[in-house]
Amino acid sequence: MQIPEHKLIPYIQKWVDLLPEEEEKILSAFEPVELEKKKLVLKPGEISKHIYFIVKGVLRSYFVDEKGVEHIYQIRLENGWIGDLESFFSQNPAKFYIETLEASLVLQISNGRLEQLYAEVPKLERYFRILFQKAYINALQRLNSTMWTTAEERYQDMVKENCDILQRVPQAYIASYLGITPESLSRIRKKKS
Amino acid sequence: MQIPEHKLIPYIQKWVDLLPEEEEKILSAFEPVELEKKKLVLKPGEISKHIYFIVKGVLRSYFVDEKGVEHIYQIRLENGWIGDLESFFSQNPAKFYIETLEASLVLQISNGRLEQLYAEVPKLERYFRILFQKAYINALQRLNSTMWTTAEERYQDMVKENCDILQRVPQAYIASYLGITPESLSRIRKKKS
Repeated sequence: MQIPEHKLIPYIQKWVDLLPEEEEKILSAFEPVELEKKKLVLKPGEISKHIYFIVKGVLRSYFVDEKGVEHIYQIRLENGWIGDLESFFSQNPAKFYIETLEASLVLQISNGRLEQLYAEVPKLERYFRILFQKAYINALQRLNSTMWTTAEERYQDMVKENCDILQRVPQAYIASYLGITPESLSRIRKKKS
Repeated sequence: MQIPEHKLIPYIQKWVDLLPEEEEKILSAFEPVELEKKKLVLKPGEISKHIYFIVKGVLRSYFVDEKGVEHIYQIRLENGWIGDLESFFSQNPAKFYIETLEASLVLQISNGRLEQLYAEVPKLERYFRILFQKAYINALQRLNSTMWTTAEERYQDMVKENCDILQRVPQAYIASYLGITPESLSRIRKKKS
């Protein structure tokens, strides 16, 4: 498959210097997969086999509560990672659905292959250490703002960070991600326009 | 200073095998510090110089909003880590207070010394990669439960995870950590007893 240009290697190089042979080893460990729109790559109860680096497209992870209501956990665009990390690393059954919102191209890697890659390119431990460190700090900030700021402030932060997401992701999903009703989001958006 | 027995090395060994000389290098990079009760080790606006491994005691991180209300971010006991990670890693001004809730003994390390230690003991990248990976998953779960479960369920989860925390941390702090009022927490506790 012809893989379009992507930023996996430049993103890793932001944090660690890679030799050409290390780049080679990393790229050959990832498998490119084309996914149609609305494709489920993971369902609750399955063991998460892969994490995904998004070359093109949008994916979301969500769960459905006992009343049948969907709650969105993550929405990720190009050059982001997505996965059910708990299931992926523990190999316990997944709690989440992961689904494409557009036709997408991802680079996938399995847990076993990633462990092998750490042995082949130990610098990758550093890259993922920094990646998880940043992800952890972001998750705490999101937690912080969920607990102690208004939905309106959270929406403004989201617009500031990534205005692209608003064009490409249905409003109901954005509302769920922000933990508010679509009606509240609609009111906030009207107020601002 | 006579350092009481602690689990820093055993905790690291859970994830990576260390040679005796590596243990030595790690231990010598951390500086033991005794802190009295109610001691502030960080204030908003300061650059966070250290992260702390708690040998003995309890620490919390919190911020104060524009109305003067305290919001608790983290509460950590023995064998846990605490710090304002964003400030520590970016060397930007801190947003949080970090304070002891009991007389405590911590092992502290600076950002520069930690970077040097990664070079001396590269396996530590793996340990911290796994630590941040788990911390990230936990933060997402906490976010999840904050958005989509009741305060009562969150309280029950907290009791299940760490009943010790309830004996040692004031009820008002537990309420703040759970994002509820002390009155709501009081109602929940009465219901259960």
